[in-house]
Amino acid sequence: MSQMTLSELNASSKNDFVAALANIFEYSPWIAEQAASFRPFADKTQRAAGLTAESNAEQNSAGLDRLSDAEYEAFERVNNAYRAKFGFPYIVCVRRQTRDSILRDFERRQSNDARTEMRRSIEEIFRIAALRLDQLVIADDRLKVHGRLSTHVLDNHNGKPASGIEITLTELSELGVSRVVTRAVTNSDGRTDAPLIGGRPVPIGRYELKFALGKYFAGRGIPMSDPPFLDEIPLRFAVSEPEGHLHVPLLVTPWSYATYRGS
Amino acid sequence: MSQMTLSELNASSKNDFVAALANIFEYSPWIAEQAASFRPFADKTQRAAGLTAESNAEQNSAGLDRLSDAEYEAFERVNNAYRAKFGFPYIVCVRRQTRDSILRDFERRQSNDARTEMRRSIEEIFRIAALRLDQLVIADDRLKVHGRLSTHVLDNHNGKPASGIEITLTELSELGVSRVVTRAVTNSDGRTDAPLIGGRPVPIGRYELKFALGKYFAGRGIPMSDPPFLDEIPLRFAVSEPEGHLHVPLLVTPWSYATYRGS
Amino acid sequence: MSQMTLSELNASSKNDFVAALANIFEYSPWIAEQAASFRPFADKTQRAAGLTAESNAEQNSAGLDRLSDAEYEAFERVNNAYRAKFGFPYIVCVRRQTRDSILRDFERRQSNDARTEMRRSIEEIFRIAALRLDQLVIADDRLKVHGRLSTHVLDNHNGKPASGIEITLTELSELGVSRVVTRAVTNSDGRTDAPLIGGRPVPIGRYELKFALGKYFAGRGIPMSDPPFLDEIPLRFAVSEPEGHLHVPLLVTPWSYATYRGS
Amino acid sequence: MSQMTLSELNASSKNDFVAALANIFEYSPWIAEQAASFRPFADKTQRAAGLTAESNAEQNSAGLDRLSDAEYEAFERVNNAYRAKFGFPYIVCVRRQTRDSILRDFERRQSNDARTEMRRSIEEIFRIAALRLDQLVIADDRLKVHGRLSTHVLDNHNGKPASGIEITLTELSELGVSRVVTRAVTNSDGRTDAPLIGGRPVPIGRYELKFALGKYFAGRGIPMSDPPFLDEIPLRFAVSEPEGHLHVPLLVTPWSYATYRGS
Repeated sequence: MSQMTLSELNASSKNDFVAALANIFEYSPWIAEQAASFRPFADKTQRAAGLTAESNAEQNSAGLDRLSDAEYEAFERVNNAYRAKFGFPYIVCVRRQTRDSILRDFERRQSNDARTEMRRSIEEIFRIAALRLDQLVIADDRLKVHGRLSTHVLDNHNGKPASGIEITLTELSELGVSRVVTRAVTNSDGRTDAPLIGGRPVPIGRYELKFALGKYFAGRGIPMSDPPFLDEIPLRFAVSEPEGHLHVPLLVTPWSYATYRGS
Repeated sequence: MSQMTLSELNASSKNDFVAALANIFEYSPWIAEQAASFRPFADKTQRAAGLTAESNAEQNSAGLDRLSDAEYEAFERVNNAYRAKFGFPYIVCVRRQTRDSILRDFERRQSNDARTEMRRSIEEIFRIAALRLDQLVIADDRLKVHGRLSTHVLDNHNGKPASGIEITLTELSELGVSRVVTRAVTNSDGRTDAPLIGGRPVPIGRYELKFALGKYFAGRGIPMSDPPFLDEIPLRFAVSEPEGHLHVPLLVTPWSYATYRGS
Repeated sequence: MSQMTLSELNASSKNDFVAALANIFEYSPWIAEQAASFRPFADKTQRAAGLTAESNAEQNSAGLDRLSDAEYEAFERVNNAYRAKFGFPYIVCVRRQTRDSILRDFERRQSNDARTEMRRSIEEIFRIAALRLDQLVIADDRLKVHGRLSTHVLDNHNGKPASGIEITLTELSELGVSRVVTRAVTNSDGRTDAPLIGGRPVPIGRYELKFALGKYFAGRGIPMSDPPFLDEIPLRFAVSEPEGHLHVPLLVTPWSYATYRGS
Repeated sequence: MSQMTLSELNASSKNDFVAALANIFEYSPWIAEQAASFRPFADKTQRAAGLTAESNAEQNSAGLDRLSDAEYEAFERVNNAYRAKFGFPYIVCVRRQTRDSILRDFERRQSNDARTEMRRSIEEIFRIAALRLDQLVIADDRLKVHGRLSTHVLDNHNGKPASGIEITLTELSELGVSRVVTRAVTNSDGRTDAPLIGGRPVPIGRYELKFALGKYFAGRGIPMSDPPFLDEIPLRFAVSEPEGHLHVPLLVTPWSYATYRGS
């Protein structure tokens, strides 16, 4: 690809657009064809977040509309540095990210050369396009744009799935305020009726799953110490593959627990 | 025991004191004898904490000198209610407690009848005396006043103890601010050189042990996801027996971990 | 039911048969109706095994055609004792049993009174009938006659399902020779393509699952001790509910493993 | 070292002996000095085992006096091949080995060149000497000749050490008959009063530890399935470092268990 700018890309004919990007998804020209209809890409700079992205709804998915002061300043700073170096705005598929992971992504890409960074931006544009295609119900199996985060609670004290466990999933943030992503209760199979996150990418970032085990065992009349040795059990982990299936189970007794990256 | 008041107890002769309390530690009159010399007991009401206890140093051990506003109000309220019902101040062996556990103890004892509560107070006085005896190096094996909290990190990825792991022990608080109790680093046997808490009671309460595992595995060049699936691992548990030995080990790989109440 | 003998049951009209047994599966008269067509029940005494059962194929499922001498003697002894006490042959649904569990079942039922034992025999007849119905593809969702035994191997060293693991499932026997029930290899999801046992009851009994983990880790170039700390990992467990789903997973690294009754 | 034969070594003066071997334990000439007094080394070829070793008692430690026919043949075969190639008998410190590990050692050393193999033989002679020195109570801290194998059973169902568990340690054999090394019962701390193996090397080989957990939980009145899901739990593992401390704990509930290489 011969160093085409974003403006040129936006202004080009559909054929030229598809041809220019052919080498990115080499076996899937249809993606470029579909993506062409979403142009122009880079003209929606968001003041709030200081970054270019696809839409308010998408940006809000990462909590960019609720930045803390420290986060806002950090976004402003890295965004300005990025523009100063590359001359075009930073582009990222926000729905695959959290606030923390966007900041880390900024820092890494800042050290790229312009050619690499142009390529990265176009990749992100395709991710954005792919997710929009998906939402338009033009979903296609060839395009894996959804991830999944699930859990399972096994009660090793009774040898059965643990039902009725209250679960809270929180996105952790280094600079700002952590926020609850979802709450759920385990069913008779020890699972949640729906995945904790599903039907969309699981944003790259750090999370805490909290399980109300004390309440569960107390409700079953299991003898425990006072206060109970285990009460609310936090599991902290990171997501690195938004399109993957991450399973984070909990094996538990009133006196022990274990977790692992399952599948 | 015939309903002797604290004032009477304080004013009585040593023989009467020992006789009056003989039925509490029935096989250990020597404790009562030693305790007699610590009288009077109940006259050191602390304004700060709103409760009667043994000394500033002891009270500070539970963080009673650094109460949040919400905690201060809670202590005031329960203390006043206690005095209003029983006519004597609430007495507790502070060195066996945290702020949270004192508040819960207040609530429970508030529902006692006066006779029971008088008995409970005297038990607490003995605990206070026993710990003071211990500090005066009159330690006696018959009197178990020390507990222990320890940990151990096993690296199941390499089949060896995990050395150089940074550990932080924090006392959790429902009303106030959690505070760091101690920090340590694991040695070549995966243990800390000294127990996390030792040579004193382990205060009843809720704790978090945090292990910097991401740093450890990264330092060993183990391939991990980015961000690493596991980074800082928090274990939350409660202490219910201040004089017991509580061992909370961590078995860990970059993709899994387990803990249990050990011994 | 008024103490009807097996001969009377076999000889009765279909209506009488259904009526006589109505109280056993009270909401499912259709089962009795179907079962009627399988009469007579008790006239196929097997010399080899010394017990009455449904067919050669079914008996062979429990290995009754390959009894060790010790087992043969044990079967003979208990069968004679049973007949001597009750006057009718011992009946059991062999496809839900192993050799060991049949012997234990004999011992327990021997202490029943005749009325109880008659009832038990009829229950077993229904189980036999239900399984035959099922094989005739008259399968009915109201009738749960199939169980399932499955496994899953998680490689906690790499954070991924362990594929290519050779698995052997063996039925253990106290008196005779243990025999291999099935062999399988894990697929890319760490599971076996088909359940280890499925589409039929999982016979009550004791089993060993053996996993060739040493070969797996060696094949991946993981550094190990010599000989490897873990090589073939045996898990021993018992099945008590032939119609349930028993999941026995293995979480493993070269230096650790765990299992639990999953679901 | 200039290719000195075993006969020369046996016949040399003490000074020559020490000088000749000085480069093997370079900082410990005293070992060679002590070892000198144990000469001659290689003249005690055992017909039973077909290999040269230190004494009957030592050979018996590896069960060489109770070889199965298949084992005897295997030993004969490799021993003859060894002599045929090197012209001197195979020497190994039997107390660090099991029957299986000796056979594997034979096979490996058979492919060595004569110089390497001479060196290996002398190393083994020193190991034999070191262990004899140790038995003569000339034990020296500079010389680590003892290993240790220990276990620990934690009852995660009750959050306490599991006491009264019957444990059997068996040495597994590929060709011959497995044999029980020791039996023990856990004490109130869930450990055995003495290490399973201690005060001597832990022979290289494969072992099975068996724990009678079904009996334990049944004795405590814990509700279990019938037959119990877990009854006798076998842990199979290998020892590779005879002088190390190998700790193989068991964490268990009636429905789950875990083990790992501890320390």
